[in-house]
Amino acid sequence: MSHRVTDGLGHEEMDVINVSSSRRNSENLPYVHKVGVPPKQNLLKEIAGTVKETFFADDPLRHFKDQPRSRKFVLGLQAVFPILEWGRHYSLSKFKGDFIAGLTIASLCIPQDIGYAKLANMEPQYGLYSSFVPPLVYAFMGSSRDIAIGPVAVVSLLLGSLLQDEIDSSDNPVDYRRLAFTATFFAGITQVTLGFFRLGFLIDFLSHAAIVGFMAGAAITIALQQLKSLLGIKKFTKNTDIVSVMRSVWSSVHHGWNWQTILIGMSFLAFLLAAKYIVKKNKKLFWVPAIAPLISVILSTFIVYITHADKHGVQIVKHIRKGINPPSVNEIFFSGEYLGKGFRIGVVAGMIALTEAVAIGRTFASMKDYQLDGNKEMVALGTMNIVGSMTSCYVATGSFSRSAVNYMAGCHTAVSNIVMSCVVLVTLELIIPLFKYTPNAILASIIISAVIGLIDIEAVTLIWKIDKFDFVACMGAFFGVVFSSVEIGLLIAVSISFAKILLQVTRPRTAILGKLPRTTVYRNILQYPEATKVPGILIVRVDSAIYFSNSNYVKERILRWLADEEEQLKENSQRRIQYLIVEMSPVTDIDTSGIHALEELFRSLEKRDVKLVLANPGPVVVDKLHASKFPEMIGEDRIYLTVADAVLTCSPKMELEP
Amino acid sequence: MSHRVTDGLGHEEMDVINVSSSRRNSENLPYVHKVGVPPKQNLLKEIAGTVKETFFADDPLRHFKDQPRSRKFVLGLQAVFPILEWGRHYSLSKFKGDFIAGLTIASLCIPQDIGYAKLANMEPQYGLYSSFVPPLVYAFMGSSRDIAIGPVAVVSLLLGSLLQDEIDSSDNPVDYRRLAFTATFFAGITQVTLGFFRLGFLIDFLSHAAIVGFMAGAAITIALQQLKSLLGIKKFTKNTDIVSVMRSVWSSVHHGWNWQTILIGMSFLAFLLAAKYIVKKNKKLFWVPAIAPLISVILSTFIVYITHADKHGVQIVKHIRKGINPPSVNEIFFSGEYLGKGFRIGVVAGMIALTEAVAIGRTFASMKDYQLDGNKEMVALGTMNIVGSMTSCYVATGSFSRSAVNYMAGCHTAVSNIVMSCVVLVTLELIIPLFKYTPNAILASIIISAVIGLIDIEAVTLIWKIDKFDFVACMGAFFGVVFSSVEIGLLIAVSISFAKILLQVTRPRTAILGKLPRTTVYRNILQYPEATKVPGILIVRVDSAIYFSNSNYVKERILRWLADEEEQLKENSQRRIQYLIVEMSPVTDIDTSGIHALEELFRSLEKRDVKLVLANPGPVVVDKLHASKFPEMIGEDRIYLTVADAVLTCSPKMELEP
Repeated sequence: MSHRVTDGLGHEEMDVINVSSSRRNSENLPYVHKVGVPPKQNLLKEIAGTVKETFFADDPLRHFKDQPRSRKFVLGLQAVFPILEWGRHYSLSKFKGDFIAGLTIASLCIPQDIGYAKLANMEPQYGLYSSFVPPLVYAFMGSSRDIAIGPVAVVSLLLGSLLQDEIDSSDNPVDYRRLAFTATFFAGITQVTLGFFRLGFLIDFLSHAAIVGFMAGAAITIALQQLKSLLGIKKFTKNTDIVSVMRSVWSSVHHGWNWQTILIGMSFLAFLLAAKYIVKKNKKLFWVPAIAPLISVILSTFIVYITHADKHGVQIVKHIRKGINPPSVNEIFFSGEYLGKGFRIGVVAGMIALTEAVAIGRTFASMKDYQLDGNKEMVALGTMNIVGSMTSCYVATGSFSRSAVNYMAGCHTAVSNIVMSCVVLVTLELIIPLFKYTPNAILASIIISAVIGLIDIEAVTLIWKIDKFDFVACMGAFFGVVFSSVEIGLLIAVSISFAKILLQVTRPRTAILGKLPRTTVYRNILQYPEATKVPGILIVRVDSAIYFSNSNYVKERILRWLADEEEQLKENSQRRIQYLIVEMSPVTDIDTSGIHALEELFRSLEKRDVKLVLANPGPVVVDKLHASKFPEMIGEDRIYLTVADAVLTCSPKMELEP
Repeated sequence: MSHRVTDGLGHEEMDVINVSSSRRNSENLPYVHKVGVPPKQNLLKEIAGTVKETFFADDPLRHFKDQPRSRKFVLGLQAVFPILEWGRHYSLSKFKGDFIAGLTIASLCIPQDIGYAKLANMEPQYGLYSSFVPPLVYAFMGSSRDIAIGPVAVVSLLLGSLLQDEIDSSDNPVDYRRLAFTATFFAGITQVTLGFFRLGFLIDFLSHAAIVGFMAGAAITIALQQLKSLLGIKKFTKNTDIVSVMRSVWSSVHHGWNWQTILIGMSFLAFLLAAKYIVKKNKKLFWVPAIAPLISVILSTFIVYITHADKHGVQIVKHIRKGINPPSVNEIFFSGEYLGKGFRIGVVAGMIALTEAVAIGRTFASMKDYQLDGNKEMVALGTMNIVGSMTSCYVATGSFSRSAVNYMAGCHTAVSNIVMSCVVLVTLELIIPLFKYTPNAILASIIISAVIGLIDIEAVTLIWKIDKFDFVACMGAFFGVVFSSVEIGLLIAVSISFAKILLQVTRPRTAILGKLPRTTVYRNILQYPEATKVPGILIVRVDSAIYFSNSNYVKERILRWLADEEEQLKENSQRRIQYLIVEMSPVTDIDTSGIHALEELFRSLEKRDVKLVLANPGPVVVDKLHASKFPEMIGEDRIYLTVADAVLTCSPKMELEP
C-alpha cells in the first residue's frame, strides 16, 4: 500500500491500473511515485510569498529585474508616465484615429457635461471644467488606451446627493461648491492611496451583480430627476426616491407642466432614442448617436432663440461662465467640520468612480488584449482628481458610453482624450455663451438617452439564469436606489456582496458519494442515481476549505449524514456503518479550528465504533495535519490517496469483523 | 469520447482503464456512464434547500415529523424545557454524582463570584446573585449536561470596562448598577434573538485562534488588575493596559505596598498554585484545587479576624449584603440616553458570553458524545440572562474552569447547577456575614489562579505550527488586550478574523500541473519535481470557487502563468503553447463574475492562438456554464472529464498543426 498519503500530495486523478498495479507490484514497485513533499520554505519566504500574491499578484516590478540603474530610472519614469513609452512609437496614422475619436467624444461630452453638472447640483461650467483638466492628466499617466475621462452620470448623482445631505446647494452655493472640491480632493487621495498601497483588490468586493443592479437603479433615478426639466415643473422634490418624485410630478400635473417644454423635450428625446436605435442595426453608424446630442443642442438652442420660447416658460441654461478653469486650491476645506464630511463623501465617491473606471479599463483591455495594471490605473485616476480638485473640477472618471464611442471611433491611444480636452478648451473660451439659450429640457433628454444604456436587461437575465443569490443582490441594490436613495442602494449592494462571501465560507456543500457500477469512480449519489453505496462504508465529500467559519458546521453535517444513514439502515436491518471516508480533494486548506473539528469528529466516531478514513487531502492540508499530529491520532494508515483505494483497503478488513 | 462533460458531473478519480476502455469501446460502450445531470429543482425548492442548510442545518424539527398533534405539543414543550425529557429518566445514582459535583462547583464558585463582581466594578453580593438565579433557569432550559453557569472572569472584565467608559462606578454606583442590569437584559435579548432566528452561526465568525489570543490577553489583564489587592496598593489606575498598571504599581513601590497583605496574598497564591499543580500529576485529585479556594478563604478570614490584620492595612471585603436577590426590573433603563448605551454594551457582552458558553457546551458534548443544538442553547442562555437582569444579576455564562471541575466531579445532568444554586442560596441567607473579614488579597489570589488556566500556551504553539496567519490573529488579539484594552483586543480579533475570510476568497491558490512519469496522474510541479510538463500544453489548477471577489485575480493569474511559460519557452526555443487546460476539480462553484472572467480568459487566449480547455468542472459549475452558453462559446468538445483525457485528445491534434 505504497500509495497511502504520508507526507503531502496534490490533487489526483487516480486510476485502477495505477492502484492495482502498485498493489500487485508492492515488492518491486515499478509504478510507484512517493507522495511529494513540497520543499519546506522558511517562514520569511513563506510570508514574502503570501504578501507577494496578495499585493503584487501581477508582479509589477519584473521588468526592473537585472537592469542597470539608469535603465531602471527610465523604466520607473515610464511606469509613472506611460505616455513616455507609447509616445515614442506614436505615428501620424494613429493620430488620425485618435483625432476623429477625440472629436466624436468631445461632441458627445459637451452637452452631457452640462447636464451632469446639474445632477451634482453644480453650475453647468463645472461639468466642462471636469472634462478639460482631468483627461489631460490622465493622458500622461493612464495606461488604458480606450477610456474616455470626464464627469459621469452615476458619480455626479451620488456626489450631488451626498453633498446635498450636508449643505443645501441653493441656500449656500459657495460652501456647497467648496465641499464638492474637498470631496473631489479626498476622492483623489483615496484612489492614489489604494493604488499606491496596492489595495486595488478591495474594489473587487463589490460584486458584478450588485453593480448591475446599482447602475440600473441609478439610471432610473437619474431619468426620473430629468422629469423636472422635461415637463417644465418648477416645484420639485429634493428627494430622489421614486415615490417622492412621482408625487411631485403628479401634484403639478394640472398647473405645473409646460407644454412648450414638453414638446421640445419629447421630440428631441425621440430623435436621440431613434439615433441610438440606428446603431443597433448598423454598428458602423456609431457616430450618429455620438453627434446627435450636439445636433439637438444646436437645433433646439436655435429654435428657442428665434421663437423666444424662453418667454413662454421654457427654461433655459441662462448664465454659464466663459473661460477656462479658475484655480480652486484655496476653496478646499483643509480644516473645520467640513473636512471630515468632505473626506467621508470623497472616499465613497472615489471608490465608486474607481469601480466604474477599472471595469471600463478592464473590458477594453481584454477586448484589445493588452495588460492593465489596476493599481497603476488607480494612481493615475487619483492624481487626476487631486489636480482636478485644485482646478475647479469635481470627481471625474471613465464614462461607459463615451469610452464605447471612443473605441468604436477607432481611437488608438489616450491622445483622443487630449483632443477632446482641446475641443472643450475652445468651447469654454469661445462657444460657451451660445449655450445661454439651450433649453434645460434638451439636456434632460440627452441625460435620459445616455443613462438608458446603464440598464442592462440582458445582464440581469443572465444573472437570474446563472445564480439566484446574485440576482437577489442585483435586485436589492436596484430597489434600494430606486425606492430609497443612492446611498442606501450602495449600502445594500455592499452588504449583500459581503453576506454572500460570508455565507459561502460558512455553509460549504457536502455530498454522499456512491460507486458507479463497473468503475472505481465515486460520485454524488444525488447526481448519479445509478451510483451505489458501499455496504458498511459511508463516503462523504466536503466541498470547501475547512476554516473556523465552517469547521463546526462541517463536523456536525458529517455526523448528521451518518445518523441519517444509520437510521435508514436500521429500518432495513442492513449492515451498520463501520467506516466513514471523508473525500477531501476539494479541501484546499484547513486551519486550527478545522483540525479541531476533525479531531472532534474522530472522537465522536470512535464512541460509535466507526473508523474515520481520509481520502486525498491536498498538500497544504497534509502538511498541517502532520504539524498537528492528526495522522498519528487516527492512525497513519487511515489516509489514502483516493476513495477507491480507501474502499479497497477497508472492505476486506470489514469482512473479518462481526 | 463519451466521457466528455456535457451536462454536469461530480468530482472524479478518473483512471486509465476507464478512459482507455471507453476509448477503445466507443462503439459498444460497456463501461460508459453518461455524465449525470442533477435533477433540475424548481426555484422554490432550491431556495428552500439553501435556507434550510443555512439556518436549519441541524434539522431541528425532524422529530416532529409524522407525529400526532398532542405528541407534537409534548415534543415542543420538551424542546423548550429539556428537563422534561431527561428528568423522566432521572435516578438516585445520577443524583449522587450531580450532588457531589454541585457541592464542588459551589465551593469553587462562591469565592470566585465575589472576586469577579469586583472585576465588573459591582459589590460582592452581585456575583453571588448571578450564581443563584441563572443556573436555576438554565437547568430547566439548557441542554448541556456539563456546563457550570455563573459569572466568569472575561465577561466580568469586559462588562466592567465597557460600563466604566460610560459611568464611573465610584462616582455614581446606582446608575452604574442600573446600566449593568440594562446591559444584562440586552445581552439576554441578543442571545435569545440569535438563537430564535437561528443566527447562531454568526459566533463562528470569531476564529478559534483569535479567541485563544483574546482569552490569554484578558487573563493577563485580569491578573494585573489583581496586583492592586495583592500588594495592598490604594491608589491604582482605572486603565487596564499593562503600561498604566505597571506604572501604577511602580509609583507606589516605596510607600503604597503593604507587607502584611503581600504575605497573606502570596502565601495563599502559592498554596492555590500548588493545588493546581497536584491535579496535573494525578487527575483523581481534581477536588483539591476545587476546594482550595474555599479553604483559603476560611483560613485567611480566620487569621485576619484573630490577628486584627485589618487594623494594619490589610484590606477586607467589609460590607456584603445578606439575603437573596432583590428584584431589579424597575432598575433597568427602558428609556433615556442609557438605553442605547446599555443595548450596545449588552450586545457585545452577550456575544462574548455566548462564544464562551457555546465553546464549552460543544467541547463537553463531543467528549460525552451527545448532540447540542447551538441555537436552542442560545435561547436558554438568553432567557437566563433576561431573568437574571430582573433579579439583580449581571451577565452570566458557562465558566471554563468550573465546567471542567463539574465534569471531573462526575456530574450527569444540569441538576449539579441546581445543587450549586441551593448552596449559594444558603450562603446568601446564612453564611455571607462571615465573609466580612475575608482579605481582598485572597480573592485576588483566587482570581489569578483561576485565570491562569485561560492562558493556553499549548494551543498557541499548535497555532504557530499549523497556520501562521492564525498566529497573527492570535497575537493581535493578545497584544491588543494587554497593551490597549479589552474592547480594542476584541475589535482586532474580529477584524483579523474577517480579514482572513476575505483574503481567503480573494487570493485562491493556483498551480501548474505536470505528468508523473508512467502514470496519467497530473500534479503540482513544485511539489513533484519529477512531474514533467506536456510540450505545447499548459495545465493550470485553480484551487477555489470562482466568485466576484477573485474572478479577476484568477483570470490574470492564469494569463501570467501563460506569459511566464511562453517567455521561458522562447528562451529555449521550444514549441509554443497551443492548449491551456484549466483543471477545475476544486472549483466547487462559480458566479456571474466568474463566468465573465472565463469568457475574458477565452477571448484573451483566442487572440494569442491558444485554445482553452476545461477539465473536470463540478456539477454546479457545469450547470451554470451551460446556463451562460459558455460551452457553445469555447466549443462543446473542449470540456473533459479529466486532465488525462484532455491531454490525450489535445496531443494528437497538436501534431497535425504546424
